Amino acid sequence: MTNKKTANSDTATKLTAEVVSIGDEMTSGARLDTNAQWLSRRLGDLGVEVIFHSTVGDTLAHNIDVFRTAASRADVVVATGGLGPTRDDLTREALAAAVDQPLELRESALQHIQSMFAKRDREMPQRNQLQAMFPAGSQEIFNPQGTAPGVDVAFSRPGNFDSRVFALPGVPAEMKRMFDETVAPRILQMAGSSETITHAVMKFFGTGESDMEQRLGDMISRDRQPRVGITVSTATISLRVSATAANRTAGDEMIAATRTEILQRVGDLHFGDGEHFEQYHAVDRILRDRNESLVIVELGNAAPLGDWFASLGRTSAYRGGVSLADQADLVEMAEGVDLDASVRMLRNRFKADWLLLVSGYPELDHAGDTPLPAAEVVFTVVTPNDQALNHTISMGGHPSILQQRIGKSALHWLRTLLAEKNSNDNN
Amino acid sequence: MTNKKTANSDTATKLTAEVVSIGDEMTSGARLDTNAQWLSRRLGDLGVEVIFHSTVGDTLAHNIDVFRTAASRADVVVATGGLGPTRDDLTREALAAAVDQPLELRESALQHIQSMFAKRDREMPQRNQLQAMFPAGSQEIFNPQGTAPGVDVAFSRPGNFDSRVFALPGVPAEMKRMFDETVAPRILQMAGSSETITHAVMKFFGTGESDMEQRLGDMISRDRQPRVGITVSTATISLRVSATAANRTAGDEMIAATRTEILQRVGDLHFGDGEHFEQYHAVDRILRDRNESLVIVELGNAAPLGDWFASLGRTSAYRGGVSLADQADLVEMAEGVDLDASVRMLRNRFKADWLLLVSGYPELDHAGDTPLPAAEVVFTVVTPNDQALNHTISMGGHPSILQQRIGKSALHWLRTLLAEKNSNDNN
Repeated sequence: MTNKKTANSDTATKLTAEVVSIGDEMTSGARLDTNAQWLSRRLGDLGVEVIFHSTVGDTLAHNIDVFRTAASRADVVVATGGLGPTRDDLTREALAAAVDQPLELRESALQHIQSMFAKRDREMPQRNQLQAMFPAGSQEIFNPQGTAPGVDVAFSRPGNFDSRVFALPGVPAEMKRMFDETVAPRILQMAGSSETITHAVMKFFGTGESDMEQRLGDMISRDRQPRVGITVSTATISLRVSATAANRTAGDEMIAATRTEILQRVGDLHFGDGEHFEQYHAVDRILRDRNESLVIVELGNAAPLGDWFASLGRTSAYRGGVSLADQADLVEMAEGVDLDASVRMLRNRFKADWLLLVSGYPELDHAGDTPLPAAEVVFTVVTPNDQALNHTISMGGHPSILQQRIGKSALHWLRTLLAEKNSNDNN
Repeated sequence: MTNKKTANSDTATKLTAEVVSIGDEMTSGARLDTNAQWLSRRLGDLGVEVIFHSTVGDTLAHNIDVFRTAASRADVVVATGGLGPTRDDLTREALAAAVDQPLELRESALQHIQSMFAKRDREMPQRNQLQAMFPAGSQEIFNPQGTAPGVDVAFSRPGNFDSRVFALPGVPAEMKRMFDETVAPRILQMAGSSETITHAVMKFFGTGESDMEQRLGDMISRDRQPRVGITVSTATISLRVSATAANRTAGDEMIAATRTEILQRVGDLHFGDGEHFEQYHAVDRILRDRNESLVIVELGNAAPLGDWFASLGRTSAYRGGVSLADQADLVEMAEGVDLDASVRMLRNRFKADWLLLVSGYPELDHAGDTPLPAAEVVFTVVTPNDQALNHTISMGGHPSILQQRIGKSALHWLRTLLAEKNSNDNN
């Protein structure tokens, strides 16, 4: 049962993986499983190919089956859930049964759990001792944030190196940190690599996924180093660059070179870096650098920009926003004579340098998933020297993301204007 | 291979199910799988227990394995994806291999596909003929919206009735309609039932899931008829009531009786009915009935209410909204002397009967998943007779839903005021 065989240690081995999600709340559809997606991306970043996801409820026999099947068909299994202290939490028991080993109390784990309770000035309930039980021969996965340690079990496979099951808690914050700090290094070690992995995320807006793929060409090949992966979220494209290298410095250098190559191909669409960096962050950063401020006016059946910019907090360049049904209401509310006069008046009232107007978001049929036909939307910007500029786009598409795509298109245009103004100023 | 055996036709059989999602974009984590959650809920509504989900990429051998495993351990398998016309679409081929039958051209399906292209004035590309290929002995699942018909295949199981695999397209709108119109009736038939299923959704706000479960008690037992299921989405609780009955009228009567019982237990928290009916719809309906209008002011680091109310369109009671950083900015923008004077002034400027102020949404740490400690938030309402009322709540919790919970709590209070005002008017 001990991990005698290992993956080939001379050359890095290409590993396969299965992600397992545990809990009745997932099989019943009461909760949407987002852990599996996160883990799949991270495993992909490590160069591991995810070939299956499995989801199973809180039934012991089903859990044992799922672990046996997964550990026989994939080299790496990462499971989430079922590590709590209640009767529904069966992962430890299922793993012990699947490798035919008894559960035994692990003293180091028990001490950690007791210390977590002590920190909160509480006594450990007796049932939490269960969380310190481990299948004999398995390893602990340290959980710095919670009472549930993870379990790392080797499964022997005839004629092959041992596969490994890494069982983590279902709480996303704990799961993510334990994966990055402990599981990822152990997987790289399994792959026969003493190397580390370095990540970077670059963000783009202004084209579709297939055009992006075409322009990147061989850069998105699975065998490339650093790997470049594409993900799309409501029309924002993320390129995830992952370098496997001897150390962090070498990884950073590889990423810098790949970054230059990416910018040569699609630099015109690039607006910033980082998993959570969006276009409104980019606009805010440009404006703050120039010590200028912005007010947003949104007409029609949505107001996404107001919500996004408000989230930036009080140090941002955002002065505030107004949402109204249509132009007539805007003119009336601003006590203006026409649209241009009204937006100029509003920019003054908010004491902002720039005003962005989206006029207007279309009404959606909430019942349907049917894409909407393209329709015209007009954007207006009032500049610091009180000029009103217009830009018209034509946009249709899936109702669930159409309003956000329109808001993002408005920001795309505003970024272009800010860049022009900047280069004019420099002339 | 034909479906000789059936589930017991005297008494309704309790069926188990597995949901299968197909596509590299899911195993790689590029796309989040929401189809599996929707199908799990629908199967639960039918009284079918979902015991596994499986996700598999676009690899033929893996697909064959997944279908064989699923059809052997579950009575019903519902799969999505892999029915398109490209080389990556392997579901038809995998099903044929899994039941060891050849693929044959189904003339009725071909005619449907050709007619879909004819409707759009396009000729059918040769490769779309693939979508009319079916494993011998399988049944078609009609797709009224797209070119990909579904496939319904019986798998024989030694000593048991045949299990059934229903393969549907991955496009959510097509998948949902085909499930409701064709797959659900066939599953009820498998369960030995000539009955139909009737659904209703009731919506609640103001308590947590465990309190709701406690108050409903035995009503949420899995064996109850009609079944009552709880799902929670950002603090809004949905009760899904599903009645299995001889016909629609009998089902409606059963649901009406269960509805009365639910309202006796948790009626104080009930705000409306329907999958997509939210508190802002309820507030809007009350105001429209009274021919009154509303303006929203949101301070701090979010503005969710403005976005929600804007989505209601031009026939709504919503006059518009303003979002600003803090009270000082509000007073300055409204050219008022203090907060009360400013909100009164804004209500006038927007020509609205009611004003709701949320002051203010806390700043979130976007990096973390750690719950935020409770903090005070003040709500202000200006009534049609220019009274300003205040209400303070204390709220913390998970950052991803905290802002929305605050917005929803404000609406909860506004609904209370509207109800009071209504009963005063009636006195």
